[in-house]
Amino acid sequence: MTFPVVGMVGGGQLARMTHEAGIPLGIRFKLLSDTPQDSAAQVVGDVVVGDYRDLDTLRAFARGCDVITFDHEHVPTEHLRALEADGIPVRPGPEALVHAQDKGVMRARLDAIGVPCPRHRIVTDPADVAAFAAEGDGFPVVLKTVRGGYDGKGVWVVDSAEEAAEPFRAGVPVLAEEKVDFVRELAANVVRSPHGQAVAYPVVESQQVNGVCDTVIAPAPGLDADLALRAEEMALNIAKELGVVGHLAVELFQTRDGRILVNELAMRPHNSGHWTMDGAITSQFANHVRAVLDLPLGDPRPRAPWTVMVNVLGGDYPDMYSAYLHCMARDPQLKIHMYGKDVKPGRKVGHVNTYGDDLDDVLERARHAAGYLRGTITE
Amino acid sequence: MTFPVVGMVGGGQLARMTHEAGIPLGIRFKLLSDTPQDSAAQVVGDVVVGDYRDLDTLRAFARGCDVITFDHEHVPTEHLRALEADGIPVRPGPEALVHAQDKGVMRARLDAIGVPCPRHRIVTDPADVAAFAAEGDGFPVVLKTVRGGYDGKGVWVVDSAEEAAEPFRAGVPVLAEEKVDFVRELAANVVRSPHGQAVAYPVVESQQVNGVCDTVIAPAPGLDADLALRAEEMALNIAKELGVVGHLAVELFQTRDGRILVNELAMRPHNSGHWTMDGAITSQFANHVRAVLDLPLGDPRPRAPWTVMVNVLGGDYPDMYSAYLHCMARDPQLKIHMYGKDVKPGRKVGHVNTYGDDLDDVLERARHAAGYLRGTITE
Repeated sequence: MTFPVVGMVGGGQLARMTHEAGIPLGIRFKLLSDTPQDSAAQVVGDVVVGDYRDLDTLRAFARGCDVITFDHEHVPTEHLRALEADGIPVRPGPEALVHAQDKGVMRARLDAIGVPCPRHRIVTDPADVAAFAAEGDGFPVVLKTVRGGYDGKGVWVVDSAEEAAEPFRAGVPVLAEEKVDFVRELAANVVRSPHGQAVAYPVVESQQVNGVCDTVIAPAPGLDADLALRAEEMALNIAKELGVVGHLAVELFQTRDGRILVNELAMRPHNSGHWTMDGAITSQFANHVRAVLDLPLGDPRPRAPWTVMVNVLGGDYPDMYSAYLHCMARDPQLKIHMYGKDVKPGRKVGHVNTYGDDLDDVLERARHAAGYLRGTITE
Repeated sequence: MTFPVVGMVGGGQLARMTHEAGIPLGIRFKLLSDTPQDSAAQVVGDVVVGDYRDLDTLRAFARGCDVITFDHEHVPTEHLRALEADGIPVRPGPEALVHAQDKGVMRARLDAIGVPCPRHRIVTDPADVAAFAAEGDGFPVVLKTVRGGYDGKGVWVVDSAEEAAEPFRAGVPVLAEEKVDFVRELAANVVRSPHGQAVAYPVVESQQVNGVCDTVIAPAPGLDADLALRAEEMALNIAKELGVVGHLAVELFQTRDGRILVNELAMRPHNSGHWTMDGAITSQFANHVRAVLDLPLGDPRPRAPWTVMVNVLGGDYPDMYSAYLHCMARDPQLKIHMYGKDVKPGRKVGHVNTYGDDLDDVLERARHAAGYLRGTITE
């Protein structure tokens, strides 16, 4: 047998769902997980428990893998370079991944290749934040530590220089950005393989609640076809220019005046692509696996007119399994995806997908199920 | 967390695909496998290597499982009764499963509940086979050992009493059946839960080559709606009368004179239901898991007008992975399902699914891919 071994660093739900998508391909899947209880570690056969920040651990794990890929973007760039020097393909590679790890590097590179972004620059202290505000339309200003933020963490919206002290306390460079007057958030998901084949999923609308993705609608309702095409082309261009291999999510602002600006990049399967598991011919996870193995990519087109994903966040109600009875009986077409994670308030512990011809119906079904699982809907 | 543990006995591809279908439900999946290399054992986290024929092994495995289910029908009935006596739900239970284990018991029971079967009776020796032939339309006669046969093994078609010696050598009772003059084979797949909810998948056409399933077309082309309904009702009735929990496949002969006769029963996900993985709203594997957990069942309806499954058998060409390049590039909608099994001539090592609006196109794509993977098509 010559089936390859894919080494996945990180044991979260993205690794779990990538494993699920890899099973039909007959590939071997090897996991480096922080603990044996991590989401993916519960369901993968070949698990190494260890710390990805330790180069020796990473090197030992990578031995016997045909390619290394990631559940998250936290592996130090120098470690990835060391693996590459050892002859292990790392996908996406460190030169691409740094753009998803460091928002300062990302903004500089997008500027260089002419991709529209919110007005931005690195700021040094609260007084510099005030100067940045004065250079544009004033406060509010968005501040982000260039490394380590996600799901609203590491991001502050400040109304004055006085409020701007906190972001600088970590000692990490801070990026200031204009607060974009957006009508909604979109995401353009693309997948690219080492020899340069790429596919684009339809552009989706992503609705955030408290900085965390809540609902994704595929395709984005009412999106102008030209704008959709422009967003797909932009994402494909970023993937090509940055040398991305695997899945790239480009989070976008759609502005009131009809522009699209890049908010964030993620180089791995992404929450805005979870709808593809039940809504697309080939899921983002299956295509990520195909890309990192340099296999021809699968068809990214949708299977239904509308697909909706709603995240299931932890609430006050820990027993989500008993909620299955209601949810499954109410909607026999419902797709539940739970991650095997303990319920903690606000934690992403799963998502649901629904699809169909009528967007209102599809939305209602997904929201009801997610709310019932969380415990915010009880009837 | 109150998510249940499903114990799966047997490490074949059915267990592998059941695990894949169980991951999104967040359930715990525990596997009893003959070896660590078995198809399912490669991809499951919690694997016990042991012999299911040993009651102590089975009992130790079952401890900590909320329910036991099966990849195959070979677990001795008395072992299953012992597990039930220990208080472990066994689904399907021994009283149902015996009908899939013993063709003599199956035929007697189907006769008793009025389900049409080929003419049949237990025969004692070659002379009795000649007598059985004389009671009907003469030779050829089909002989089957009542236990242990599958995929054409344990089945003989004999043209004379002289040819009928072989089946009696195993010392297992032998069932004689008329050789049915069928126009094609069909399969009616249903799933039933402990509290009696049941769903029926569309009736499919199953094409065999050398006694092994080769191609499944869903739904069966040109099947009269009344006949289809009758087949679904028959399968639902069998599931109810036999107390089946989980997936039941009823393999059928469609006769030249417009009748449907039951050929075989299988109480587990079945090759004739593999198309559901990509072609139905809820796959047979997902519904089997839901049934054994007594969860509400998922919608069994198809997602496309036509879905075709073709088995990938081992051929002379061991390196199936390198064939992915051609198959995936030629057909970006192709769904490959490989089982991680070593290639041996004639062995089922995977299957492909295709779906779409045009049956000829869907069939051609599936047959090309399966043939290319096997090595019988090289361009």
